[in-house]
Amino acid sequence: MSTHAKIRLYVEHPLAAGQTVPLSRDQAHYLFGVMRQAVGGAVLLFNEEHGEWRAEIVEAGKRGGMLACVEQTAPLRLPPDLWLLFAPIKKARTDFIVEKAAELGAGRICPVQTEFTNAERIRQDRLQAHAVEAAEQCGGTYVPPVAALQRLERVLSDWPGDRRLIFADEALVGARAALEAAPRSDKWAILIGPEGGFSPAERDRLHDLPFVTPISLGPRILRADTAAVAALTLFQATRGDWE
Amino acid sequence: MSTHAKIRLYVEHPLAAGQTVPLSRDQAHYLFGVMRQAVGGAVLLFNEEHGEWRAEIVEAGKRGGMLACVEQTAPLRLPPDLWLLFAPIKKARTDFIVEKAAELGAGRICPVQTEFTNAERIRQDRLQAHAVEAAEQCGGTYVPPVAALQRLERVLSDWPGDRRLIFADEALVGARAALEAAPRSDKWAILIGPEGGFSPAERDRLHDLPFVTPISLGPRILRADTAAVAALTLFQATRGDWE
Repeated sequence: MSTHAKIRLYVEHPLAAGQTVPLSRDQAHYLFGVMRQAVGGAVLLFNEEHGEWRAEIVEAGKRGGMLACVEQTAPLRLPPDLWLLFAPIKKARTDFIVEKAAELGAGRICPVQTEFTNAERIRQDRLQAHAVEAAEQCGGTYVPPVAALQRLERVLSDWPGDRRLIFADEALVGARAALEAAPRSDKWAILIGPEGGFSPAERDRLHDLPFVTPISLGPRILRADTAAVAALTLFQATRGDWE
Repeated sequence: MSTHAKIRLYVEHPLAAGQTVPLSRDQAHYLFGVMRQAVGGAVLLFNEEHGEWRAEIVEAGKRGGMLACVEQTAPLRLPPDLWLLFAPIKKARTDFIVEKAAELGAGRICPVQTEFTNAERIRQDRLQAHAVEAAEQCGGTYVPPVAALQRLERVLSDWPGDRRLIFADEALVGARAALEAAPRSDKWAILIGPEGGFSPAERDRLHDLPFVTPISLGPRILRADTAAVAALTLFQATRGDWE
């Protein structure tokens, strides 16, 4: 973090030397209203194609503004092809899971409805905004898309056979069931159940599916948000981009 | 989780067949007021000496009550000798770190004041209550004590030389510095810095100390709470009680 520009913004706009980038109303409010930046100030911008760039503020207004890219400060770096499937329940812990998934380099965030999930709907736009904010903070150059809420049953029926699904099975508490046992794959997903766990039927189905690897997350029962962070950590450390 | 008693309470009282256990005022309020339990109801009790016991409610009052132990339902299981040192900043994230440390089997939770930590004091009793609640939920038989806030400088001066300190060094983002490189030890600690990171002087000092092993937590910058969960997970999976 030796750069002078501390503010990082995700933009859906091409980035290149000399390229100008317009600010959205929200970004202008944040930069000029909240962060008190002015013309001449430095900001880091990133998108999912051109990495991270240092840009200079060339226009500042209440409802918009303009930046100009100066130089690339980090190359594009995409996370592993890893989906995080989780069952949203309480708002604060759902927000937390999305934030952590973005920080820990999940490629896609998929809320799923299980038999013991009460959530009938999610605020997809709000969750996506959390993912953007986490990506801006963590220094990555990728924002995982937050998918619409889908029924787990449907997700499993439509599952692409070449994607390995790691299933954090709370019934395996204390058992020795490790990620190392999973076959090699380029495409992965992690499934975390709701606080109440999976139903017996769901668990049976998961154990029967050929693309599923059940894993244990130790001898204690973890909350869903802890389990999400722990499983993402284990994946990144053994199969992902921490190596 | 096939037991009928779903409520788990931590008690500082001996547990044995036939042993009666008095309830505190708070516990009575929770059991009878919030959870609507009555005489004859079943509760799981645990302490840090006798494991987990199923108990029956034999007296129920507004300000107290009495339980009687029936049978042991889980043996005593202590976590590894692992301290978590972290720099508390924001309330919600501090609460979260304490909760996660208890769930993930830290043996002791030590808030430390670093150069970039603003916290002059912590609510030790409130943090301890969070640790108790997390232990009750996670099915463990141990509650990590929350120590008083101490200056990092002082903690390092008084450090017991036989305890290995794993230091999650945010300057190592993207580097390959793994826990596997640490020497064997029976006594461990993990140190997580504040959101603003360690000061250059602190980092230099940590790198110079013979009992310190710096590790990297991947290519992205993690928030302090994420880093705590990730480091605890890596420890438990490679050196702790997940194996």
